[in-house]
Amino acid sequence: MTKTIAFVLYPGLTPLDLVGPLQVMAGMATVDPSFDVVVVGSDLAPVETDTLVKLTPTHTFDQVTEPFAVIVPGGTAGAFAALADESLLSWIRHVARTAEIVGSVCGGSLILGAAGLLHGRPATTHWASRDLLRKFGAMPVTERWVEDGPVITAAGVSAGIDMALHLVARLAGEQVARTVQVMIEYDPEPPLGGIDWNSDVPEAIEPQVQAMMELGLADHPELLARLTS
Amino acid sequence: MTKTIAFVLYPGLTPLDLVGPLQVMAGMATVDPSFDVVVVGSDLAPVETDTLVKLTPTHTFDQVTEPFAVIVPGGTAGAFAALADESLLSWIRHVARTAEIVGSVCGGSLILGAAGLLHGRPATTHWASRDLLRKFGAMPVTERWVEDGPVITAAGVSAGIDMALHLVARLAGEQVARTVQVMIEYDPEPPLGGIDWNSDVPEAIEPQVQAMMELGLADHPELLARLTS
Repeated sequence: MTKTIAFVLYPGLTPLDLVGPLQVMAGMATVDPSFDVVVVGSDLAPVETDTLVKLTPTHTFDQVTEPFAVIVPGGTAGAFAALADESLLSWIRHVARTAEIVGSVCGGSLILGAAGLLHGRPATTHWASRDLLRKFGAMPVTERWVEDGPVITAAGVSAGIDMALHLVARLAGEQVARTVQVMIEYDPEPPLGGIDWNSDVPEAIEPQVQAMMELGLADHPELLARLTS
Repeated sequence: MTKTIAFVLYPGLTPLDLVGPLQVMAGMATVDPSFDVVVVGSDLAPVETDTLVKLTPTHTFDQVTEPFAVIVPGGTAGAFAALADESLLSWIRHVARTAEIVGSVCGGSLILGAAGLLHGRPATTHWASRDLLRKFGAMPVTERWVEDGPVITAAGVSAGIDMALHLVARLAGEQVARTVQVMIEYDPEPPLGGIDWNSDVPEAIEPQVQAMMELGLADHPELLARLTS
């Protein structure tokens, strides 16, 4: 039976959180047809992201009930709004029961947390909201990606590419992972080098995270209060 | 006046080619409002990509006549089909007259070439089709990105992220580039390391490139013959 990797769409997601690992996992499915990849949303209409383009799902939540893997991207205010989206959370909870891999990128970890899937687990997310993982009973870890049982969480946005290549190596072998890496020519050369965590991080990021939370959870004051307490 | 960065959509593009640099340039526009970013297509309908999701433009070609910068993504068979899309090529040619930056990612370079914009220039593209640049009078270069006058071309798929960060540093300064890099947490850790160009490249890639060309240019035998001669 084909093993389905399901990427989750919800309003306000960050497109690179989804498209980075999608490109990697779709590459795996090209090389190894025992996998296939779907992009799942509440219906088949284009979904607004936080960065200009809309993304259109290939399937609805109703059509994908037992994926082999589920991967939840992050977003800015939209990811916080998703923390109160009971139909999204209940689909994630449902498929997580049988999925062998439950993954997230960036703020997608908080959504896994809101679905109750991170309790007692080490996890990561975008650096700016890493401490919020504690609100869902998770233990924040400063790594590019963190695996714990079926759960794998990646750091911010672009970290989803590294996590996905790791998953390809695990699921289909290192040779397939190298082939996919060459297909997407992933031989990174950040022009200014890697991040210098001592000097590159903007000061006073908390007010920006707070503003995103307030925007995303404007209609859910109790959840907002719990996250900001 | 706001400086508009225009990303080009056409059927069959590779989504990460566009979404990677889009995420970077949109981050720049958040930090420095003298820039804005648009995604341009022939109409406002969702556009098929070569990897599952459709992407929806924000503007039509008619609406964007004098962008500050234009960036053309690649694709698989779709990028070859675009080489014969006269309305796309003529829009690119038109905006290139006044744009300060004419950029491409991956097979987007071949589209710039077909528009007549690479003649006599050093340029790059996805490694598998690098030699095809000669068919458009360009000189293939093995670099992550190549600048020559207003033209900047990036290597395959993920190279668009590095090129875009370089452009941010050039246009808005290194500090803004570092801020954007931290926003998207671009501190790459490819799990198997970088590409080993001596051992990771699949043998006999030519038949695959040939198959993509034949698929994309099935209705344009003369152009196909010129590219494969």
